[in-house]
Amino acid sequence: MVGPDRPRSLSTKTLDLLAAFTERRPVLTLSELGRAADLSLTTTHRIVSDLVVWGALEREGSGSYHLGLRLWEVASLAPRGVPLREAALPVMEDLYESTHENIQLAVREGLDVVYVERLAGRDAVRVLTRVGGRFALHATGVGLVLLAHAPYDVQVEVLAGELRRWTEFTVTDPARLRIVLDEVRRSGVATSDRQVTTDAVSVAAPVRGADDTVVAALSVVMHVDSPLTPMAVRPAVRAAARSISRTLGSASARAGARPPDGSS
Amino acid sequence: MVGPDRPRSLSTKTLDLLAAFTERRPVLTLSELGRAADLSLTTTHRIVSDLVVWGALEREGSGSYHLGLRLWEVASLAPRGVPLREAALPVMEDLYESTHENIQLAVREGLDVVYVERLAGRDAVRVLTRVGGRFALHATGVGLVLLAHAPYDVQVEVLAGELRRWTEFTVTDPARLRIVLDEVRRSGVATSDRQVTTDAVSVAAPVRGADDTVVAALSVVMHVDSPLTPMAVRPAVRAAARSISRTLGSASARAGARPPDGSS
Repeated sequence: MVGPDRPRSLSTKTLDLLAAFTERRPVLTLSELGRAADLSLTTTHRIVSDLVVWGALEREGSGSYHLGLRLWEVASLAPRGVPLREAALPVMEDLYESTHENIQLAVREGLDVVYVERLAGRDAVRVLTRVGGRFALHATGVGLVLLAHAPYDVQVEVLAGELRRWTEFTVTDPARLRIVLDEVRRSGVATSDRQVTTDAVSVAAPVRGADDTVVAALSVVMHVDSPLTPMAVRPAVRAAARSISRTLGSASARAGARPPDGSS
Repeated sequence: MVGPDRPRSLSTKTLDLLAAFTERRPVLTLSELGRAADLSLTTTHRIVSDLVVWGALEREGSGSYHLGLRLWEVASLAPRGVPLREAALPVMEDLYESTHENIQLAVREGLDVVYVERLAGRDAVRVLTRVGGRFALHATGVGLVLLAHAPYDVQVEVLAGELRRWTEFTVTDPARLRIVLDEVRRSGVATSDRQVTTDAVSVAAPVRGADDTVVAALSVVMHVDSPLTPMAVRPAVRAAARSISRTLGSASARAGARPPDGSS
């Protein structure tokens, strides 16, 4: 944020205007858009007019703007969004039916977890996440799986950074977290026991792509008092993640072999 | 398509590059991108570089590009995409569990249906649609609901246009289609009986927003030989659509009154 004059290409300014919308502020006026994207009102007005004609923004009756369906349609082709989800959904349905708990699918983007799908019954335990939302890597089940299989430099950066504590059970000691990640790789599952909220436990397993690298993580998040125990859920989560991996063309999931990185 | 010189703003060129990706071609090289967006290689290269830095495109090992997760994250805030889906999902889950058939949620964009959510079991009947995909208004259950409640000029345009025939059961006579739409408004449900594929029947009902206009349609698509008959499914689909409407703040769904347009 160095004022309206900082040099950015018009393409980047266009994208920054789209990124001005947040979950808390899904509807913005022209001047709010300009402020959020750090652009003059003239530039904002010019770009927003183009965005509305194209369908990336839609104008409301009030004169404010929200993100348009056409942008969502185009973005739904992002391979780590909807296509991953389409491969995973039938398996997630089965897992939901056999557990009636929250079923989540997530990918890693930089140092964050991004949730690409969630199924949740009406009575499932409350979770802090939403589809399209981000969360830290070091606390949730899917986050621990994605961190355990992230490139070395990502792990170093996370372990050296601030490890936020959500509950008394959140692992925030880097040395202890390193042991947890070793165990995740060894066992093929991650368990986050009340590490995000004191009433939820999650069990997660890695999903592998065509080149056998971990491309996503699948989890069941259940109430801490659920009759289902983490131990009881582990085989189902592992089998489901493996089934998605097979759909994505993972050779190790197909052959029943161990993946090339030696993990389970 | 009037050649690389046709006047477009750089914002529009940026969006056109994003829209170059399709379901059949989710990965494109730089020159394919330029061709699809009708841009010179120099311009394409300049914009694509910005898009990659921002995260709207991701570069593959091969040097080709696919749509990026960050674009999907931003677009997931489009109110007619994920937020509608989040309101609908618990209800769709319940409907899926009680039917084990395809459950679809769709909105109207211009003269098309756009599917924003689908739940489908492994054994559910094959459908021609995908999430983020488009379809004609005049043949599917959700399309008939959305068309019946579309503004008058949209109905006139669809009825005057080409009404494609998918099967011998597709209604392609404008006069007959007008009667079907009357019946959809009167009864509060639409039934598409083998009008898209000869093995599928769908039953759809309108979802209303805070201002009580129809913002989406919900359907069950089942096999023509399913033990569930369309008649048997109607109450469940109507109740589910009404429940989503209530979540969205529809006054008529809350009060149990008839909506302002006099339909069911």
